Amino acid sequence: MKKKIAIYPGSFDPVTNGHIDIIKRAVGIFDEVIVSVLSNREKKPLFTTEERMEMIKEAVKAIANVSVGSFSGLLVDYMKKHNSNVAIRGLRAVSDLDYEFQIAHINRELYPEMETVFFMPNAKYVYLSSSIVREAASFGGDLSKHLPANVKQALEKKFAK
Amino acid sequence: MKKKIAIYPGSFDPVTNGHIDIIKRAVGIFDEVIVSVLSNREKKPLFTTEERMEMIKEAVKAIANVSVGSFSGLLVDYMKKHNSNVAIRGLRAVSDLDYEFQIAHINRELYPEMETVFFMPNAKYVYLSSSIVREAASFGGDLSKHLPANVKQALEKKFAK
Amino acid sequence: MKKKIAIYPGSFDPVTNGHIDIIKRAVGIFDEVIVSVLSNREKKPLFTTEERMEMIKEAVKAIANVSVGSFSGLLVDYMKKHNSNVAIRGLRAVSDLDYEFQIAHINRELYPEMETVFFMPNAKYVYLSSSIVREAASFGGDLSKHLPANVKQALEKKFAK
Amino acid sequence: MKKKIAIYPGSFDPVTNGHIDIIKRAVGIFDEVIVSVLSNREKKPLFTTEERMEMIKEAVKAIANVSVGSFSGLLVDYMKKHNSNVAIRGLRAVSDLDYEFQIAHINRELYPEMETVFFMPNAKYVYLSSSIVREAASFGGDLSKHLPANVKQALEKKFAK
Amino acid sequence: MKKKIAIYPGSFDPVTNGHIDIIKRAVGIFDEVIVSVLSNREKKPLFTTEERMEMIKEAVKAIANVSVGSFSGLLVDYMKKHNSNVAIRGLRAVSDLDYEFQIAHINRELYPEMETVFFMPNAKYVYLSSSIVREAASFGGDLSKHLPANVKQALEKKFAK
Amino acid sequence: MKKKIAIYPGSFDPVTNGHIDIIKRAVGIFDEVIVSVLSNREKKPLFTTEERMEMIKEAVKAIANVSVGSFSGLLVDYMKKHNSNVAIRGLRAVSDLDYEFQIAHINRELYPEMETVFFMPNAKYVYLSSSIVREAASFGGDLSKHLPANVKQALEKKFAK
Repeated sequence: MKKKIAIYPGSFDPVTNGHIDIIKRAVGIFDEVIVSVLSNREKKPLFTTEERMEMIKEAVKAIANVSVGSFSGLLVDYMKKHNSNVAIRGLRAVSDLDYEFQIAHINRELYPEMETVFFMPNAKYVYLSSSIVREAASFGGDLSKHLPANVKQALEKKFAK
Repeated sequence: MKKKIAIYPGSFDPVTNGHIDIIKRAVGIFDEVIVSVLSNREKKPLFTTEERMEMIKEAVKAIANVSVGSFSGLLVDYMKKHNSNVAIRGLRAVSDLDYEFQIAHINRELYPEMETVFFMPNAKYVYLSSSIVREAASFGGDLSKHLPANVKQALEKKFAK
Repeated sequence: MKKKIAIYPGSFDPVTNGHIDIIKRAVGIFDEVIVSVLSNREKKPLFTTEERMEMIKEAVKAIANVSVGSFSGLLVDYMKKHNSNVAIRGLRAVSDLDYEFQIAHINRELYPEMETVFFMPNAKYVYLSSSIVREAASFGGDLSKHLPANVKQALEKKFAK
Repeated sequence: MKKKIAIYPGSFDPVTNGHIDIIKRAVGIFDEVIVSVLSNREKKPLFTTEERMEMIKEAVKAIANVSVGSFSGLLVDYMKKHNSNVAIRGLRAVSDLDYEFQIAHINRELYPEMETVFFMPNAKYVYLSSSIVREAASFGGDLSKHLPANVKQALEKKFAK
Repeated sequence: MKKKIAIYPGSFDPVTNGHIDIIKRAVGIFDEVIVSVLSNREKKPLFTTEERMEMIKEAVKAIANVSVGSFSGLLVDYMKKHNSNVAIRGLRAVSDLDYEFQIAHINRELYPEMETVFFMPNAKYVYLSSSIVREAASFGGDLSKHLPANVKQALEKKFAK
Repeated sequence: MKKKIAIYPGSFDPVTNGHIDIIKRAVGIFDEVIVSVLSNREKKPLFTTEERMEMIKEAVKAIANVSVGSFSGLLVDYMKKHNSNVAIRGLRAVSDLDYEFQIAHINRELYPEMETVFFMPNAKYVYLSSSIVREAASFGGDLSKHLPANVKQALEKKFAK
């Protein structure tokens, strides 16, 4: 049996408990999961790629078989380099579906051997997104139930300035 | 029986007959409705917060039990200050649903005693949005059937420049 | 201020914790909530109208300002009889939306003074439905986390035969 | 590394090229895939459980690591018996999503260690369903492009009567 | 220029003002429109095929270039017989989309030269469906605003029995 | 019989095989199709209006009865000028629907005699969009299967700089 390495690509700006939930589900199925931060200069993230990677590393340190990386450019090139043919994504709601399928379809065109598989998050995270977290935090909203402790601190520090 | 005050938060950039329709429905159910303009500097609205408030005031002046306010920051803080535990929103279509539920969910997290309740607009407003109104008006399109008279004039003035 | 009576119509075959969640939210906003079982002979419910009413009564007995009734025929006739102009419904997901709006629209045609307002359930109930509960119970699945204790017993008794 | 066995449950009434596409994708990721026909007496399928199993066996005989089974009752009991903690499902469109997530959620409640993962079919199968196939075949429509050869024959035989 | 004949297939059980609205739009674009009642014995319609055809004929008698027919079996065979390569359908809402596209896709497979084109109804009919009309009428609800006068009478007669 | 001229408005930034598929379908139904590039200065397209028009002209040169134009401002003014009362649009997925219907509704308000009709693309283009094409091309992804040859070259040249 070949070792199954799954890539979990995303912006993770910042990582939420919804993402952590998907990661835990994925390590129950795949032998290794690489959480891979998309380093996209044009989108102007709140946190730098390095900050986002550090936050994920801290948040997943108790979960076995997870590592954290980053990539720019095409996901498929990154997957080939890491000998992975499985990308994973969480699907929350209908509004996710069309865009996720567009991306997955293009990736399949570019790398036909790869598969994108979709996980259903725990219902309690179904309305959670990084963008909502950023927006609430910018106004001082306390979302500690939905965030790893270190992410909560990083957000408070970011917006205390 | 406690007085029921409902907050109707939104950008209202500008207010349309679709919003007025929701306001009329809400005053049939709640004792008072406060239409509350979100003053979000970063979104670069077409009209200033003050202009938007004035347009609403003029458009609702014949409807009893409606007042107009504005807020920046967290909706939940504004609601507590006004002794309201009910936010109202119109739901037009599927594309609204996911985003509206994300916002409502975060607000519930931040203020568990509050509820967001959703109204169905009159069918004739189901395809109407402020952004479509702005876009059409910028090209000289006459949407008078869908706008309060004063809003129509304000748009014409804005784009006549 | 007029007393605000809200009707919560539905099949409730059987009532779930998702329905109870909506009821609790509604009594925070309205002065009285009447949970109203639709007695529709043609749909062949699992439980009789009387059984469904009894299950709801038991499940809501600790919640103030809630009563339980039933109706057949048009909801709007029932609402007029009970001096209510507000119907409430939970909205879980996109697949609910179109059907719920069709019904709400027809009711509005038949009784223009009434309003249907929609509540967002607690996220943990977003995937819960009575039909899924019936299906799982018919195969012996234990859904006790999602059901009032008395409903769980009634289902076990029903499928033990 | 533990052997990863995925269960692909469904009605398969009849199996289509869309299902075969999902099966091929799944064997690229999991060590074994068991296609599992739901034997649900109440739904009155067009083909018996045995016929459906035979059609799948014939259609997948050239694909390694695939077996065919059947179950009645709860999927989770069947999965435990086969030492599988992964169910797979194809997701075609928005209308699938809500129902699929309801089922996946209930299964997760009943068996928290299991995961349902969703695959995106080849775009050319995005509008294909067994029910549409049955309906077209009942009127003599030739859908050979979308069906394994043996399924096409079985349908013709069924409706020739 | 070839004469463009469009087929408008449907159950029309019964025809509503929403259907009439689509018919009027279609005759503005095509040279002839044949409203074609699907005669599907298994679906147990409220009105017979003949009743449905008569109701449509009466309702469209003032609209030029419209005729009424019926078909059983495959739509594509009917279209070929009438020298039409265009089927038209109204699209109200998201819940229509997936099913309509499944049907249109299968028809395209069976008859590649044909096209299904979709019309947007007048917004006021966006929540109207024949099934909702039947349900309301069965309880005595007056939907005269949404129905041709003769259909209203036919419904009253049907449910007066 | 009047000559039927259909306008196909869009950004076409750049034109894809999905658009070409819609154009081919439209010329099977209408006497003439004018592909009309929206020249919207504020959206900052990747290609200029002229480049986009040239790419379309080259891609459709083998299709009879197609011409290419451009417009700024209101579509309805452009349609009146070209004696067209039919706009055509492709509908891929649910996420398209709400926005497309908003636009079509506003256009209908501004020009009641016009109709927007929607085509279903070939299933293989259901996940294709110009924005996904631009994003993939910017990272060197080869999407030649989905693009006219000249568009592929133009993208390579654009991103080679």
